[in-house]
Amino acid sequence: MYVHEQTNPAVTPMPGLSHSTWAGQDEGMSQLSVWRQSIGPGAATPPHRHDCDEIIICSGGKGEVHIAGAVHAFEARSNLTLPRNVLHQIFSVGDRALEIVGILAASPVDVFLPDGQKIDLPWRT
Amino acid sequence: MYVHEQTNPAVTPMPGLSHSTWAGQDEGMSQLSVWRQSIGPGAATPPHRHDCDEIIICSGGKGEVHIAGAVHAFEARSNLTLPRNVLHQIFSVGDRALEIVGILAASPVDVFLPDGQKIDLPWRT
Repeated sequence: MYVHEQTNPAVTPMPGLSHSTWAGQDEGMSQLSVWRQSIGPGAATPPHRHDCDEIIICSGGKGEVHIAGAVHAFEARSNLTLPRNVLHQIFSVGDRALEIVGILAASPVDVFLPDGQKIDLPWRT
Repeated sequence: MYVHEQTNPAVTPMPGLSHSTWAGQDEGMSQLSVWRQSIGPGAATPPHRHDCDEIIICSGGKGEVHIAGAVHAFEARSNLTLPRNVLHQIFSVGDRALEIVGILAASPVDVFLPDGQKIDLPWRT
């Protein structure tokens, strides 16, 4: 009930994106979600935002986060802090997968495209 | 502003406990804190609770979390989910340090002893 295995990311319908939900409602959380993701070389998330703070812990690969037209590079041994509702897009730009743990201050998590449309996520939140 | 280095834990006045605040108010967060901690062999946190959900990601060593008189063992490649206000105490029980990332759904974070006294934490939250 309190202890959970760190399961490996599995392929999703989103191109290049593997995912494992490590924690959320099913693990007793109401204020936190933790998502483990691998993003293959050249792949990216859609541009999106969520109505809660997010922190990304990077443990492998190289990435860029694009925010308001600016490019911020990051890699293993760095973290991203993304305040709620900041529109952002994450690109995997190295020659191996970008390995990240995404932490969100909600469960479930609603994710929105720039036009306000809610993304129908292919994993449990 | 968005990208931050994963700084190594540094010694604190709490016996056996090294700490680095990876993210919180100073990094633009209001709903999340991330704390990187190493707990030396045989050391432990005080018994405590906080008024927000917590998730602990374990990357090394062996630990126990004691909750309501029950002992739950964990180790590298496991996570703990601790719902808000659950009283808990974490012990480092291996022969090397317990390496963890603690995620809390608040910034700043208030931490309380079992008698309700607020702990004066020796790091920024």
